[in-house]
Amino acid sequence: MIELVADRYGKAAIRLVRVARGPDGDTLRDLTVAIALEGDFAAAHTDGDNTNVIATDTMKNTAYAFAKSHLDGPLEAYGRALADHFLAAPQVDVATVNIKGHHWQHIAVGGQPAPDAFVRGGEGTRVATITGTHAGTTVEAGVEDVVVMKTTRSAFRGFPRDTYTTLAETDDRLMATKVTAIWRYGSPDLDFDAVFAAVRTTLLEVFADHESPSVQTSIWVMGKAILDRHDEVEQVRMVLPNLHHWLVDLRPFGLENDREIYTPTTEPHGLIEATVRRTEA
Amino acid sequence: MIELVADRYGKAAIRLVRVARGPDGDTLRDLTVAIALEGDFAAAHTDGDNTNVIATDTMKNTAYAFAKSHLDGPLEAYGRALADHFLAAPQVDVATVNIKGHHWQHIAVGGQPAPDAFVRGGEGTRVATITGTHAGTTVEAGVEDVVVMKTTRSAFRGFPRDTYTTLAETDDRLMATKVTAIWRYGSPDLDFDAVFAAVRTTLLEVFADHESPSVQTSIWVMGKAILDRHDEVEQVRMVLPNLHHWLVDLRPFGLENDREIYTPTTEPHGLIEATVRRTEA
Amino acid sequence: MIELVADRYGKAAIRLVRVARGPDGDTLRDLTVAIALEGDFAAAHTDGDNTNVIATDTMKNTAYAFAKSHLDGPLEAYGRALADHFLAAPQVDVATVNIKGHHWQHIAVGGQPAPDAFVRGGEGTRVATITGTHAGTTVEAGVEDVVVMKTTRSAFRGFPRDTYTTLAETDDRLMATKVTAIWRYGSPDLDFDAVFAAVRTTLLEVFADHESPSVQTSIWVMGKAILDRHDEVEQVRMVLPNLHHWLVDLRPFGLENDREIYTPTTEPHGLIEATVRRTEA
Amino acid sequence: MIELVADRYGKAAIRLVRVARGPDGDTLRDLTVAIALEGDFAAAHTDGDNTNVIATDTMKNTAYAFAKSHLDGPLEAYGRALADHFLAAPQVDVATVNIKGHHWQHIAVGGQPAPDAFVRGGEGTRVATITGTHAGTTVEAGVEDVVVMKTTRSAFRGFPRDTYTTLAETDDRLMATKVTAIWRYGSPDLDFDAVFAAVRTTLLEVFADHESPSVQTSIWVMGKAILDRHDEVEQVRMVLPNLHHWLVDLRPFGLENDREIYTPTTEPHGLIEATVRRTEA
Repeated sequence: MIELVADRYGKAAIRLVRVARGPDGDTLRDLTVAIALEGDFAAAHTDGDNTNVIATDTMKNTAYAFAKSHLDGPLEAYGRALADHFLAAPQVDVATVNIKGHHWQHIAVGGQPAPDAFVRGGEGTRVATITGTHAGTTVEAGVEDVVVMKTTRSAFRGFPRDTYTTLAETDDRLMATKVTAIWRYGSPDLDFDAVFAAVRTTLLEVFADHESPSVQTSIWVMGKAILDRHDEVEQVRMVLPNLHHWLVDLRPFGLENDREIYTPTTEPHGLIEATVRRTEA
Repeated sequence: MIELVADRYGKAAIRLVRVARGPDGDTLRDLTVAIALEGDFAAAHTDGDNTNVIATDTMKNTAYAFAKSHLDGPLEAYGRALADHFLAAPQVDVATVNIKGHHWQHIAVGGQPAPDAFVRGGEGTRVATITGTHAGTTVEAGVEDVVVMKTTRSAFRGFPRDTYTTLAETDDRLMATKVTAIWRYGSPDLDFDAVFAAVRTTLLEVFADHESPSVQTSIWVMGKAILDRHDEVEQVRMVLPNLHHWLVDLRPFGLENDREIYTPTTEPHGLIEATVRRTEA
Repeated sequence: MIELVADRYGKAAIRLVRVARGPDGDTLRDLTVAIALEGDFAAAHTDGDNTNVIATDTMKNTAYAFAKSHLDGPLEAYGRALADHFLAAPQVDVATVNIKGHHWQHIAVGGQPAPDAFVRGGEGTRVATITGTHAGTTVEAGVEDVVVMKTTRSAFRGFPRDTYTTLAETDDRLMATKVTAIWRYGSPDLDFDAVFAAVRTTLLEVFADHESPSVQTSIWVMGKAILDRHDEVEQVRMVLPNLHHWLVDLRPFGLENDREIYTPTTEPHGLIEATVRRTEA
Repeated sequence: MIELVADRYGKAAIRLVRVARGPDGDTLRDLTVAIALEGDFAAAHTDGDNTNVIATDTMKNTAYAFAKSHLDGPLEAYGRALADHFLAAPQVDVATVNIKGHHWQHIAVGGQPAPDAFVRGGEGTRVATITGTHAGTTVEAGVEDVVVMKTTRSAFRGFPRDTYTTLAETDDRLMATKVTAIWRYGSPDLDFDAVFAAVRTTLLEVFADHESPSVQTSIWVMGKAILDRHDEVEQVRMVLPNLHHWLVDLRPFGLENDREIYTPTTEPHGLIEATVRRTEA
């Protein structure tokens, strides 16, 4: 016997920009949205029966229409409206909405923000994932692609050595990483923008402040700080590549290199992931 | 209380090329390898204790060294040797080795393959993932980035219509997708190269042959065919973006467009995923 | 005084697919087109006067419409039709059409090509640039992104050594590159598909055959062979990155590495460019 | 006769990070450097004679060594030191050094910049190109990948209409672009950091302030303002893609869309380029 054991489908990479025009200037939202549904869709696979298959084109249209009507507040509220909408279809058991928010800021002209001109930039992307089921709604928020570096207070010592070990121990290496951090909120009703900003600040401040004996410890220290300082957060998952920066050997050129000139590399790279959670006890 | 609930780490994007030099010409292997370990690594996170932390640099070195000694056969055998090696360390519970094989072929000179010159190309990338645990070894194989298109015999009809539905029903659309298909073998000891080639052929032939009422059905039909024809395979997971090709409206220019001129798009795209499995019954 | 000294504009990244449906199966063309115009457009810059500015949206529409009417033959004929069309506008002095042709082939089913199913792939991209002026039309053709490798018969010796030189001389290195080769035809009326195929074969065969003392020599040898063997070609320009493959030091692991295990790198890379031309004499 | 008509070679994508460690905190420089040489290199092509061929590996080493000794000041001074160094070799006629500077800033902790922790970000990349010849040195500076948007005061009207024109005239479109702007200085000895910052500010302020009847005019207005306000600049070249944002038709869903919800696209895109220069008169 052959059976379908898991399936989901949806629309990804829905790009949209919303300009809210006001007397004091425009507000800009720039999003990439992905919507995925799970539920009673087996007949579409096994029988070619599309009766239950909400077209992914319809999902795209809904994302556009809801951007008009439901995007005055945080990403999470917009995502929740979309998730609730699709969950109202009887065939849907799980509706997942993932949103990336791209950062723009007003261009400064003579020190004042221009009301109608923007420059894209900033550090990393804000993300939110809203998962609606009939049992309730889960909201995750986080950041992607925040590239950070510690120029000191990072070590890596005491690791085991075998036939294939050539890495030297170091008390003072350069540590760089591109942070993906996703945290789960305990409630679907929060002041999401404020909490996001606060958690992001904690993440960056702790990254800057702590002494790192390994990327593993850095994840734990940052994750623990987020849970300690932000009651709204239940769990944090982090994925940290170790973007190695190798000290260049300048001795052949008669030069010393005391932790000064590095060559950054991307291949290969370490990859460290962990999830830290608040428990009941 | 705050606790670590999951963690793993390793080295990703290890690039290596192996040239096996023979009297009748060279053989070329070009791989990207990722190694990840799970096990007794909590102290590295919570106590900064690296006693158990096999350096990811050591993993890289091991991948290079084993390329010398264990890469005469299929990717899967090389991956298994690496997984077994790391699993032999007492702190390791799970060792996962993911390998991408990049395709090169001999350049033809006067119709004959040059012994020592190659051109990179082909359709998609071969992948293998070997997961070693103390309970046994699982081998998955598959392809990524195989871009295929059906120019006819693809329809999408009978889907529900609501306020946000504007998509027309169609009996004859162009269907294009970039296939990711990963299948799990029932045994870690197979003639992996032969089985891979056979499954890949089935995948492409069935894609070409079948009538598609939806991408969902296409996944089912391809997955089912793989399970029907290849006893070695227990399960197939496929992820198929729907790379929309929209018929261009040429009427303003006085031209008819009967399924002839399309504009391909990548944003947004449908995304359909499913897993099909052989069951005991 | 401030003056406009050069300007051009157009539409880039126009994506289109054409399916020619025939009794023996479909034929697929997949193109990315860019159109650029130069001419009497200064007033658009300096006076905001768009009287002469053919909208880039119109260029896109024209590319689609001409795909219907002018794409039965080679890329170059389609590009020339577009260039001639835009050159007919009195304000246009130069119309440049650049076309990339993406390769698809029929999927084989039971050894026979499926009439209506295709897989994308192949080695590199075919390109053509047609430049129309009132003085005449120039046609360039070529390839991009053809990744090739020689596993032997490549050396690099006899280069100068100074304070900053650490590279060892080598008689037998691995040479890999991603070829961009663009050749200019002497006539705008040729059997473009046949000549393209023949020149591409020469390029690959000579790459495979020659002994390389440097990438510089390789460019010369390939370019010269193209000019020697193909009278239709007047000039060849090549850009060859040197995609370094470094021999891995396996001695710490007790292993020899006689030109066997390499690590490919992309940063940094050499970059060698040259143009070779037929002269009157 | 076949001849070599142009050739150059060098090393590209040299990545380096310099950490200058000071009592008040570290300073971080993150560069991607490319070096290219022209001169008496024909024998390397035609005769396989490497006597004059400074190895690109040597160029890389020199870039690292000079990062130690010549990178206390602006990018341009470092680039000039490299160009002068290579120009001192008798076979070199032209030495071109292109530098991209990647932006990092100190992470704020409690409102104060951390001395030794940084986050990468900002808007666009700073670039500099130093071209040394025996006749003198030319310095160009600029920005790449600065993505900006005007949410109003951008129009496109009065363009010609033909058979293939379907674009409507508009008084109020959204204009977005990714600016590449490269300006040439009149002297190789300037306070490069200060001038760069001032020119960049002009570019952004004028983009924000002006009324745009076309991207063509925007280039002219920005280029002219840079030349008007900055005597150090002789010439400005700009390349502006027109990153179209299309107003979504929400009428099928019973919603109005008065310049509010847009879908951003990247394919196809307009591409407008022009050079504006100061003339003697």
